[in-house]
Amino acid sequence: MSCRSLLQASRYIYPSTRSCAFPSKRAVCLRFGARSMEGQKKVAMEVVKGKEEAAADVSLKQLSKKLDDFAQERDWEKHHSPRNLLLALVGEVGELSELFMWKGEVPRGLPGWDEAEKEHLGEELSDVLLYLVRLSDMCGVDLGDAALKKIVKNAVKYPAPSKSA
Amino acid sequence: MSCRSLLQASRYIYPSTRSCAFPSKRAVCLRFGARSMEGQKKVAMEVVKGKEEAAADVSLKQLSKKLDDFAQERDWEKHHSPRNLLLALVGEVGELSELFMWKGEVPRGLPGWDEAEKEHLGEELSDVLLYLVRLSDMCGVDLGDAALKKIVKNAVKYPAPSKSA
Amino acid sequence: MSCRSLLQASRYIYPSTRSCAFPSKRAVCLRFGARSMEGQKKVAMEVVKGKEEAAADVSLKQLSKKLDDFAQERDWEKHHSPRNLLLALVGEVGELSELFMWKGEVPRGLPGWDEAEKEHLGEELSDVLLYLVRLSDMCGVDLGDAALKKIVKNAVKYPAPSKSA
Amino acid sequence: MSCRSLLQASRYIYPSTRSCAFPSKRAVCLRFGARSMEGQKKVAMEVVKGKEEAAADVSLKQLSKKLDDFAQERDWEKHHSPRNLLLALVGEVGELSELFMWKGEVPRGLPGWDEAEKEHLGEELSDVLLYLVRLSDMCGVDLGDAALKKIVKNAVKYPAPSKSA
Repeated sequence: MSCRSLLQASRYIYPSTRSCAFPSKRAVCLRFGARSMEGQKKVAMEVVKGKEEAAADVSLKQLSKKLDDFAQERDWEKHHSPRNLLLALVGEVGELSELFMWKGEVPRGLPGWDEAEKEHLGEELSDVLLYLVRLSDMCGVDLGDAALKKIVKNAVKYPAPSKSA
Repeated sequence: MSCRSLLQASRYIYPSTRSCAFPSKRAVCLRFGARSMEGQKKVAMEVVKGKEEAAADVSLKQLSKKLDDFAQERDWEKHHSPRNLLLALVGEVGELSELFMWKGEVPRGLPGWDEAEKEHLGEELSDVLLYLVRLSDMCGVDLGDAALKKIVKNAVKYPAPSKSA
Repeated sequence: MSCRSLLQASRYIYPSTRSCAFPSKRAVCLRFGARSMEGQKKVAMEVVKGKEEAAADVSLKQLSKKLDDFAQERDWEKHHSPRNLLLALVGEVGELSELFMWKGEVPRGLPGWDEAEKEHLGEELSDVLLYLVRLSDMCGVDLGDAALKKIVKNAVKYPAPSKSA
Repeated sequence: MSCRSLLQASRYIYPSTRSCAFPSKRAVCLRFGARSMEGQKKVAMEVVKGKEEAAADVSLKQLSKKLDDFAQERDWEKHHSPRNLLLALVGEVGELSELFMWKGEVPRGLPGWDEAEKEHLGEELSDVLLYLVRLSDMCGVDLGDAALKKIVKNAVKYPAPSKSA
């Protein structure tokens, strides 16, 4: 992993990388170039800290923004037409399904799965989410707003039984 | 739409319904029973206000919490095994695909689509999201955290070209 | 069901409808117009007979031909671009999944399903097949040939354990 | 590729391998062991010939039979519950979608695709078909019969415009 990659990667964890965490790209690279242990540890710690803060409650708009930056920086916007993204989403749903395909019924919490399998699962679930967020953006749909409305609609369609005795 | 449905529905828009917006379920029903226009308007306004606040930036944990309440209140948890939810997700991806299937290539922003089609699209995108969030929860995966990690992993895998000249 | 529909429909069961079963479209319509019981019974019997013959062993090329005629007669070829058909296929896989989504593990042979459910299942399985056959055709792929090759490839990849003792 | 694999593989192309093409498994292996060019050529030619015969018009029952043999010989029947097969099918639809995802609209006949891509496509289309056939069998559905019925139902639902002037 090059220091540029790490720097770029860290930007996807917390948005303010450029302005606060690293004074300049060059400075970080120099630090890594010198194999400064403190530097590396500091980056790692900040990455972890940033991740924890973010993981506290990730919003759809946060993801949307990161994906937009991601695509722009790689000049990938030209590939992100709605149907391209939809087929990519279908591809990821397929990969998600493959994790469950030969297992028979799987209990909640996946008791028998080891850490590597769970991490893989997290990645596949994420891939579906990321394409879904991106697809919504490219269609001009505010996914968070739409999801709240849909929950309301579902609640009206399936009213909960009253709990009074 | 019964007043109970509306009350329940409104809870899915902002969490604190019970404690602040409505003093009691009975009070709201009476108000509606009396066809109080102010009462109805007030509910409608609060629903809209709540929705706008929430739509500002919906988080995955918010959705997760709402879906958990939703399932508990309907005693639907017994149906929410991982593979049941996965197949429900596949079903929704199918419905999403049906919106795009006979259209040929669709430009970004869906210029030719009318409002009803866009709203329908928002619902199908939401259905995929809601089952994805629920599936993640039932698997014990923190989807927001996993998504951030995946973006980082992608950024390392596909480093952006440097922009220096 | 109009007599024209029935006539057209019967052509999809056995190919030689026009030349042998019905002397002319008009003759059949007249027969139905006269509510001739024998006529109706005869059509029904021939449909059933045709179906049974065909069901004996339906080939992929047979399906391919029927779908081609079907599209041509309705001027639907213009809609059948590969990605349109692929998304239609995904839609059908979604509908297929919905039949299984809240059932938990389902034993072989579907012991608990009633006839209506099984018939519905047959329709959804068929929809997937028909779009798959059509998609293959529109891509210029001989699906039957490809499937045989793939079975061979799988057999080489996963050799069966020898049965000698 | 071991000679056993090739022998087994060839059985999936034409059913009568054991009785006519090879006098005995051992004989074939010996022949290959001796690196007999004629032996190898003969197998290859018969494989090709068998493939061509079969490809003339592959039936669903043929595929069904081959898949049944395949599963039995590998003792894979225990994995082939309906929902396992359904998720495997979804996985394959995902892989199929991946072939089309970044391409924008694709014209009929795939003019720009090279041979390797088309062959890959044939494999993914086949994988979907094979799981679909197997799933139908494990559900007790006669897929060929169901498909014919569905075409008839579609023809009734969407009657072709009459061609008279």
